[in-house]
Amino acid sequence: MAEKKLGGAGLRGQSAGETALCTVGKSGSGLTYRGYDIKELAEKVSFEEVAYLLAKGELPNQTELDAYRKRLKALRILPQEVKDVLERIPKEAHPMDVLRTGCSMLGNLETEESFDEADDKIERMIATFPGMVLYWYRFTHDGVRIDTDSEEQSTGAHFLRLLHDKSPSKLHADVMNTSLILYAEHEFNASTFTARVCASTLSDIHSCVTGAIGSLRGPLHGGANEAAMELIEDMKDADDAEKSLMGMLERKEKIMGFGHAIYREFDPRNGIIKAWSKKLAEENGDSRLYDVSVRCEEVMWREKKLFPNADFFHASAYNYMNIPTKLFTPIFVMSRVTGWTAHVKEQRANNRIIRPSADYTGPEARPVPAISER
Amino acid sequence: MAEKKLGGAGLRGQSAGETALCTVGKSGSGLTYRGYDIKELAEKVSFEEVAYLLAKGELPNQTELDAYRKRLKALRILPQEVKDVLERIPKEAHPMDVLRTGCSMLGNLETEESFDEADDKIERMIATFPGMVLYWYRFTHDGVRIDTDSEEQSTGAHFLRLLHDKSPSKLHADVMNTSLILYAEHEFNASTFTARVCASTLSDIHSCVTGAIGSLRGPLHGGANEAAMELIEDMKDADDAEKSLMGMLERKEKIMGFGHAIYREFDPRNGIIKAWSKKLAEENGDSRLYDVSVRCEEVMWREKKLFPNADFFHASAYNYMNIPTKLFTPIFVMSRVTGWTAHVKEQRANNRIIRPSADYTGPEARPVPAISER
Repeated sequence: MAEKKLGGAGLRGQSAGETALCTVGKSGSGLTYRGYDIKELAEKVSFEEVAYLLAKGELPNQTELDAYRKRLKALRILPQEVKDVLERIPKEAHPMDVLRTGCSMLGNLETEESFDEADDKIERMIATFPGMVLYWYRFTHDGVRIDTDSEEQSTGAHFLRLLHDKSPSKLHADVMNTSLILYAEHEFNASTFTARVCASTLSDIHSCVTGAIGSLRGPLHGGANEAAMELIEDMKDADDAEKSLMGMLERKEKIMGFGHAIYREFDPRNGIIKAWSKKLAEENGDSRLYDVSVRCEEVMWREKKLFPNADFFHASAYNYMNIPTKLFTPIFVMSRVTGWTAHVKEQRANNRIIRPSADYTGPEARPVPAISER
Repeated sequence: MAEKKLGGAGLRGQSAGETALCTVGKSGSGLTYRGYDIKELAEKVSFEEVAYLLAKGELPNQTELDAYRKRLKALRILPQEVKDVLERIPKEAHPMDVLRTGCSMLGNLETEESFDEADDKIERMIATFPGMVLYWYRFTHDGVRIDTDSEEQSTGAHFLRLLHDKSPSKLHADVMNTSLILYAEHEFNASTFTARVCASTLSDIHSCVTGAIGSLRGPLHGGANEAAMELIEDMKDADDAEKSLMGMLERKEKIMGFGHAIYREFDPRNGIIKAWSKKLAEENGDSRLYDVSVRCEEVMWREKKLFPNADFFHASAYNYMNIPTKLFTPIFVMSRVTGWTAHVKEQRANNRIIRPSADYTGPEARPVPAISER
């Protein structure tokens, strides 16, 4: 049925629609959200301002921001039924499966009955996702039922508060804020495209986000920061890092956290999170993870002309803040839900069901044999 | 970033990959599963043979079929944790959200840790989905906790048994068998494409199916048989149907169950389910729903040159078997899970992450204003 054969698998370089949300690598390296450069956003605004920008189209003024923060803060408490579900998920489960299930369950209790309700449902998801994954994590790992409410004003600080039972330092809250900004949006990546395909059937927003979480879970997509942590955690120092990496390159092993499907020269998010990782190393008085990461960056460029992507220095940064590795990808969800849902609204506003064709490679037409003849 | 601008939204007519599973409308009207015509399959084989065909590539011989049925039958009992979750989903929830949540929860308890386990996980889903939706339905609607095991040999009869607390007639079991065959597979439709995008990140099979359920939930996709039921349920007789339909056409209202994105002349599945609907009308001694459906078919062809798709006569057929309308789309899931999961395996076997580009329509690069200037 395909009328046009496309070059390359995976629709790479093929337009699958329009977006006003984001440019990726437009001049070879940049990333913008609604026209604003990621570097400037990361320096000057809060994650909540970015979330508002993606949802509403423009950055909020002070009154709008205050009201938005207040709404998010008031929406943090989980329904008892969601907590009941989370308590039944084993400790060994994949935290992305926990969020996928929690989001789906929330959709049963607070179904989006009409697209007019989209913004309310989106705010509820942004507000509850940190508490959702941490209620399960702390229940199964620490044996406590945490209160998912907190006095923290920002999403990032709220996450750290629930994880560590104490208000984070300004530095840690700032790093989380930046991290959530960096991960918020990235055009038609696989999880966002999943959300848009689902939205194109005019399904509800919880279905779209549940599906997107499932796609982000894949090791080729969201899992790279966890893989980067596994790479660096046992490296003793920079020289050990170099030795270990050279061995991996020689054995042609896959090294996660480097290179990118779209960016060709560098990932504009890398320098930003790298600077924060350095500050955290200084504050912690332990530069090991930062030093080995820097050496990995040097070796990968020297040997393979590959640059670190957004995920690589996130590994050391999160680790310096005592965030367990298995929670790295769920943080990605807490951030990217803002981009996913903005794409869902965009798809709905100018929709045609996404239904491509396939090139058939199967058997020719054949008669059904009687079961005795098979 | 788009290097190639495609004609038409929704990737219509554009190839997004290869498949050996299915041809849709290859000669303008046909549907084949792995080379076998849908009409011949619907006449000669069981749904379980089709499920096996899609999963393994060939129809089973008697020994293989017996073993396959035995495995499915042994896998019907739900884990207690899944039942606990289902009991916490309100009666008013959308049954597709129930299946989406139940499937996701199952993935937490029986995670696919390696792709070698795919076939086991697929069989488990086929075996549990009827009991999953009906455990919730009967608990919330009838106040009973059903046993999700039964002595029925076929998936269709098992579903009817759990719904009605009695073994179905041969006619009803045969209709369910045919219905499940007709819905099993349909190339790169939106829910299947959702599953493939998710699979392309190398995510697990429960994520793929959970996402696909969310897409099938959309009214432009899986909900058409329910919409067809709403259309016909209050029509008193054929003349009333004609009057009602003509009024809807005059008011330019959307009429569900007619036409198709790919088929141009007729839907090859329609004649098959229509014949069963007629038999059910005769058995029931009540031809109203069948008669009004036939008149709708005549009017839509005369006025709009639109033909009924697979969904339209499914509405009357299911209704004759006393299946509540809200369970129509979940039956679609019980069937299509065989197609979705076969596509997941196919995507994994020759994978590149599905990551298209977008045409940017947003604001030009702009500086971030101070919050006091917004």
